[in-house]
Amino acid sequence: MTGPVVPSRGALRPVGPAQVRLTGGFWGRRQAINGTATLEHSRTWIDRMGWSGNFADPGTARPRGREFSDSEVYKLTEALCWESARPGGVRHDEWLAELTALIGGAQEADGYLHTAWGRPGQPPRYSDLNFGHELYCAGHFLQAAVAGSRTGAAPRLLDIGTRLADHIGAQFADDGFCGHPGVETGLVELYRVTGERRYLDQAAKFVARRGQRTLPEHEFGWQYFQDAVPVRNGEVFHGHVVRALYLAAGAVDVAVETGDEELLQAVARQFDRTLARRTHLTGGMGSRHLDESYGEDFVLPPDRAYSETCAGVATIMLAHRLLLATGEMRYGDIVDRVLHNVIATAVADDGRSFFYAHTLHQRVPTEVVAKDKVQLRFGGGARAPWFEVSCCLNNVARLVASLGTYCVTEDPGGVQLHQYAPMRVEAGGMVLDVDTDYPDAGVVIVTVVDAPPTPRTITFRIPEWATGPQSVFRRIFHSGEQLRLELPMRPRWTFPDPRADALRGCAAVEVGPIVMCAESTDQENGVRLDEVQVDTSVAPEAGAVKGHRTHPADPGWPYQSHRTATERPDPVVVPLLPYHRWARRGPSTMRIWLPVSPS
Amino acid sequence: MTGPVVPSRGALRPVGPAQVRLTGGFWGRRQAINGTATLEHSRTWIDRMGWSGNFADPGTARPRGREFSDSEVYKLTEALCWESARPGGVRHDEWLAELTALIGGAQEADGYLHTAWGRPGQPPRYSDLNFGHELYCAGHFLQAAVAGSRTGAAPRLLDIGTRLADHIGAQFADDGFCGHPGVETGLVELYRVTGERRYLDQAAKFVARRGQRTLPEHEFGWQYFQDAVPVRNGEVFHGHVVRALYLAAGAVDVAVETGDEELLQAVARQFDRTLARRTHLTGGMGSRHLDESYGEDFVLPPDRAYSETCAGVATIMLAHRLLLATGEMRYGDIVDRVLHNVIATAVADDGRSFFYAHTLHQRVPTEVVAKDKVQLRFGGGARAPWFEVSCCLNNVARLVASLGTYCVTEDPGGVQLHQYAPMRVEAGGMVLDVDTDYPDAGVVIVTVVDAPPTPRTITFRIPEWATGPQSVFRRIFHSGEQLRLELPMRPRWTFPDPRADALRGCAAVEVGPIVMCAESTDQENGVRLDEVQVDTSVAPEAGAVKGHRTHPADPGWPYQSHRTATERPDPVVVPLLPYHRWARRGPSTMRIWLPVSPS
Repeated sequence: MTGPVVPSRGALRPVGPAQVRLTGGFWGRRQAINGTATLEHSRTWIDRMGWSGNFADPGTARPRGREFSDSEVYKLTEALCWESARPGGVRHDEWLAELTALIGGAQEADGYLHTAWGRPGQPPRYSDLNFGHELYCAGHFLQAAVAGSRTGAAPRLLDIGTRLADHIGAQFADDGFCGHPGVETGLVELYRVTGERRYLDQAAKFVARRGQRTLPEHEFGWQYFQDAVPVRNGEVFHGHVVRALYLAAGAVDVAVETGDEELLQAVARQFDRTLARRTHLTGGMGSRHLDESYGEDFVLPPDRAYSETCAGVATIMLAHRLLLATGEMRYGDIVDRVLHNVIATAVADDGRSFFYAHTLHQRVPTEVVAKDKVQLRFGGGARAPWFEVSCCLNNVARLVASLGTYCVTEDPGGVQLHQYAPMRVEAGGMVLDVDTDYPDAGVVIVTVVDAPPTPRTITFRIPEWATGPQSVFRRIFHSGEQLRLELPMRPRWTFPDPRADALRGCAAVEVGPIVMCAESTDQENGVRLDEVQVDTSVAPEAGAVKGHRTHPADPGWPYQSHRTATERPDPVVVPLLPYHRWARRGPSTMRIWLPVSPS
Repeated sequence: MTGPVVPSRGALRPVGPAQVRLTGGFWGRRQAINGTATLEHSRTWIDRMGWSGNFADPGTARPRGREFSDSEVYKLTEALCWESARPGGVRHDEWLAELTALIGGAQEADGYLHTAWGRPGQPPRYSDLNFGHELYCAGHFLQAAVAGSRTGAAPRLLDIGTRLADHIGAQFADDGFCGHPGVETGLVELYRVTGERRYLDQAAKFVARRGQRTLPEHEFGWQYFQDAVPVRNGEVFHGHVVRALYLAAGAVDVAVETGDEELLQAVARQFDRTLARRTHLTGGMGSRHLDESYGEDFVLPPDRAYSETCAGVATIMLAHRLLLATGEMRYGDIVDRVLHNVIATAVADDGRSFFYAHTLHQRVPTEVVAKDKVQLRFGGGARAPWFEVSCCLNNVARLVASLGTYCVTEDPGGVQLHQYAPMRVEAGGMVLDVDTDYPDAGVVIVTVVDAPPTPRTITFRIPEWATGPQSVFRRIFHSGEQLRLELPMRPRWTFPDPRADALRGCAAVEVGPIVMCAESTDQENGVRLDEVQVDTSVAPEAGAVKGHRTHPADPGWPYQSHRTATERPDPVVVPLLPYHRWARRGPSTMRIWLPVSPS
């Protein structure tokens, strides 16, 4: 049984869902809630919104939801497959049988599958490539079909998938592509499952066609649709973040399978530059609400950070593919950062509400969100049970249900540990038990449960914030022996690049992979977060930093010929908490980046 | 002959178009170009886009343009009236006759006037109050009709206007209002022209109905539509900037005519707080491209400043009304600032292209804009000949054509000079010649051409950046005598409020009312604007400041545990130019707020 991403070549081999069992801890708990509460919550809402009903009644001229609502049914289906397959997961056979029948019933005779286009009273198929989302939805279906096949949880999906992919191949043999990438990864994975080269070739065509500005002109520009620059010639990711990252993931898949080293390097180079210049401290991406896009280099406004949850999922998808292709352990760093500061932040403790966008600075108290109301806006509130555009929760669900496959890889010599969690690993010819309280503590103990009588290698990823410790162990391992890694978890100050205008004069605190924040809920004596300046000459302590409370003047015009005096600065202690814990205790303001005292 | 705003009471009386003749200088030149090139350019494009044609063929199910395109025809008509009426202006009688016939021909029997709603094949009238713009367009028509009547340039418009207003009164007697304010000012001015109280009453109803959240819910929130908070209870302007300011102007009009001091004070208070917390250094307003809205307090990002040209016009409309109502000269300060940094920036030297939005920080070189292409995007390019949404140019045109009426007021005791320009003024019982190179120099010389043999008062507005000089002269004036005002035009450093996160650690240079900027075009030796830090301990010189060129490190991750060293800072001189002159010499980057050297 294999996982979501199974390249036929590459520096490292992925593990299958059965090879890693999360046995508790930070992610084990979340995986359990995901597999029960979140999946049930999602199904309930998808039914209530009528998005599943669109498949039951495909003759409806005006289906409920949006052009991309079909994809939510597919992502839920995919999540149910991974959940059913993971060790300790909950089997969802009945749901999967229902969903398979529902989806299969909506497929047309020629393989086409979408509930909103092409039937009587609906606009023609592929008549709006910019926003139609037909191939985007198909991509998500193909990923679900692959999951159903690989796990055996919903094997009939694969037949629907091949018929859909064959329709796409016929329809788009010569030109055209979707304004929202996503079908590329699905097609390559279908090729990996079936061995049918035509699916890989079609994905390669879709990647190669982009960047000629052939899609219709739109006010968001061709960047938004990933049609401004050929993938191979890009310098940095741009436009709509999720579109950019899904396309990049598909391009890596194509590059790996076709041996196109130039394309692989082009994507890796763009990702590097994006990490160096267009990524928030949390690992989140996106600086513009208008078009859900990257800003220019170093445009990283904390208060308007978009950092969509789906962009976090997509960043992990891309980083994992590059990790497998290149073997460079550093790609695990961004996965670590995104998991603990975007994905962990997204979902409520009960698994039944979530953030769509992740601001790094909440200036006015979050709005109270009703438990039974669909949200039309993406930001400013607490976590919401559902959004009119609810892509994020199902995206998280499919990731978390298959999370074990992102934690570990193997190669002929042994095993690589990329993410630290309590887990039982069967890989690289060994059985290992990993014990850790990471990310709450830095000690990781690996106990060898079983190993062959030949030298094996166990490799630890050392995060970029932790230099020094030995990371590669190669020898004959014996049952019962332990390896110990201790990562330094002392709170540390972090300063931004001087070109990041929106962060000038600020600092943040990090502890291991965790970005800390100050939330109004914890401040004492009526201290407001817009009055605080911190003293970075003093090391941060666990959960608090020292600083001053200022008393800004309030003239009628905010621009003066002198720097506004901050009279009588009072010393204060500013309590901090992990960013992923914010907004869980009622309306609050919050900031990650704290202004630094001028002194 | 009276001007655009003629309250029946208030501390100061407006002057009519014939009372102030701009005789050259900064605005006289612009007024001349406006009256010829800009009006002709606008007419050409409105015809080409089919927006005027919609009136000729009102049976068309799908008119060309957008819901608000009718208003462009009306604003052009209004501008033609003011231009025809001003001393030295170009009469446009033929155009005005054509436009009057065109508009009148499209009016329906019951007085309704809009080309996009209610006819066979079109959606029903008032079926989309959020975005329909029917009353918004009506408001612009009423302002045109008032201009046509007061100037005598298009007197037949008034009859169309009263029939339209009577239709509105019948239709909206009991409930309802437009998602985009604007009709309120038009109705009150129509009342002022006709004396028909019912138009004032209807405007008062529209103002009073807002803030109950009765418009349909939308992802932009009720703030956007000015339906979140009753006008009387607001604390600060919020939501869509132009909607907020148009509504505020209408509320002032209603308050003045009904003697509603509480409403007047409520708007004045909100404007004060908006100036103190939500206004860019240029006087521009708006911080979000997504919904063209204000940000929260102190959210003033230079690179995403929206600062729509229309918001500048609307700020002047509101400030002028408050000036007339209260007599507080300080309202002239924001008019001065907006005129010289928003309006003057908006239009190209030839009057034939313009900015829609005004960034305060251009990070990547502006795009080249074709002379014959309609722009779909509002920012990032040079001035464009036309936009799909082209509200701004006609709004500027009507303002500039009537600019004299914003420069001077009178009262029983004399005359008040609010804006400084070379002009002949006949007001307050006197004839005055004003001679000045303002804003390029600070000397203003007023020569008394004619005055009565009784004591009169001449009052000068002293801008907030110029403290000291005597501003009120009361005596018997004699022909030929001169008054001299000298405003200090020494370049000065300006620092932002410490709560303006996006401006932290930066300073700007101002000279009189002029905001300066650094444009890449002027930088020497390859200095890039994202590498510059300035030394605010040295006074700025005319057109340049001293600073350093930094050499930021380029690690793979933009957040580090040390402040990034700025190695080997080289001393540089950073040339500056007035912000309103930027983007006139080909693609460039630009910044107003300059990072300050930490030393």
